Amino acid sequence: MAERADITAAILVIGDEILSGRTKDKNIGYIAEYLTNIGIDLREVRVVPDDEAEIVAAVNALRARYTYLFTTGGIGPTHDDITADCIAKAFGVSIDHDPRALAMLRERYQPEDLNESRLRMARIPAGADLIENPISKAPGFRVGNVIVMAGVPSIMQAMLDNIAPTLATGTRMLAETVDAGGLPEGVYAAGLAEVAKAHPGVSIGSYPSFREGRFQNQIVLRGKDAVLIDAAKTAVSCFLGGLKSDKAPI
Amino acid sequence: MAERADITAAILVIGDEILSGRTKDKNIGYIAEYLTNIGIDLREVRVVPDDEAEIVAAVNALRARYTYLFTTGGIGPTHDDITADCIAKAFGVSIDHDPRALAMLRERYQPEDLNESRLRMARIPAGADLIENPISKAPGFRVGNVIVMAGVPSIMQAMLDNIAPTLATGTRMLAETVDAGGLPEGVYAAGLAEVAKAHPGVSIGSYPSFREGRFQNQIVLRGKDAVLIDAAKTAVSCFLGGLKSDKAPI
Repeated sequence: MAERADITAAILVIGDEILSGRTKDKNIGYIAEYLTNIGIDLREVRVVPDDEAEIVAAVNALRARYTYLFTTGGIGPTHDDITADCIAKAFGVSIDHDPRALAMLRERYQPEDLNESRLRMARIPAGADLIENPISKAPGFRVGNVIVMAGVPSIMQAMLDNIAPTLATGTRMLAETVDAGGLPEGVYAAGLAEVAKAHPGVSIGSYPSFREGRFQNQIVLRGKDAVLIDAAKTAVSCFLGGLKSDKAPI
Repeated sequence: MAERADITAAILVIGDEILSGRTKDKNIGYIAEYLTNIGIDLREVRVVPDDEAEIVAAVNALRARYTYLFTTGGIGPTHDDITADCIAKAFGVSIDHDPRALAMLRERYQPEDLNESRLRMARIPAGADLIENPISKAPGFRVGNVIVMAGVPSIMQAMLDNIAPTLATGTRMLAETVDAGGLPEGVYAAGLAEVAKAHPGVSIGSYPSFREGRFQNQIVLRGKDAVLIDAAKTAVSCFLGGLKSDKAPI
């Protein structure tokens, strides 16, 4: 199999309402899982307020570092929707009403309803490709490697479905999980570190969760080579099979 | 009332499992709401992988910019738990087994169970204050303005309860919500922008959510002066009361 280059990504969540805790973000986890499934490695996430300087700085930092940057939020018709202008500023391009975006809005709005605020949703940075929005028509867009999507989860998800087939993808990150069967991390940590050292092509993590007064741990093996993961999984399972729990909590 | 300085914060979530989408973060929204309630303004969130260089860079960027930095994840006993070492590196201080942390672990572990992996949970950067962990004893810690907590939500929440009373807090950000009563954003956007302009001490946002095929919008007014918020809320309510919906979706 030919090696394919890693394709990387970051997410930038734009919105005071996430930082205030009023709205609980539902987009990060969804996009993370989606990108992993199509062979794009999510490497960083940031959440910033509705503030031009903060948005522009984050867009420029992240688009320079990763293959793609996905943004969510701030593309509606109200005065606090400033994402499109910030993207234009970050790229140093102009922004104006886009005829293609206007045509999309006209599918949904009667001429008398298409007021100046709604026309704001047709303001698109020069050189952008549009991303269709089957739910409420106002499009997302892509400029260079930056993909600009709505914050409302159902609309963001539809936009992601529309843009995904156009993206470069790499070898998919594979993951296998081994349940630690009630063993505390402290019992298997040293041996697991040895297994990890012996399987350099595989990233091995131990993830505790705490339910009903006790830890339930899972060991996750991740990598891009199924044969290497399989070998590591066998090693982890054999190693765990030889252990006995003690009474300690972790 | 004397003016109090703004107290700001960032969150740094450390973990490959969040970026892969395998684990859905539950800490960001919780901490965001918690900090807002005690008068600390959350200004930024980042999620980075279990990678020393990435963690150190993010810690140093964020601790320099905000009053506090809260980290979650990576303080367990396994080889992928590297947060404590990264914090020491970010501050340029040494890290070693801490007698206070060892005493805490000894409350929970029999001497024969306190193996080298578990002792890793007592490795604390020099000069740190410990944060008690009532659930599984292994402590979090604070170095300078950086507060290092577990990733498991129930433990993180207990650590946050323990550290919160020791933190400086500012005037609490107040929020009032006005339901847009089924009006599409495009109907009220222009008028809302006018109200926002006339009430500079209040930040006014419009937050659509999409349920059962239609948008339900809420207008949120935020600020630190209750009198100003009240005046802006009255202005928004009066203005909305004079509007009629049209048939457009946004």
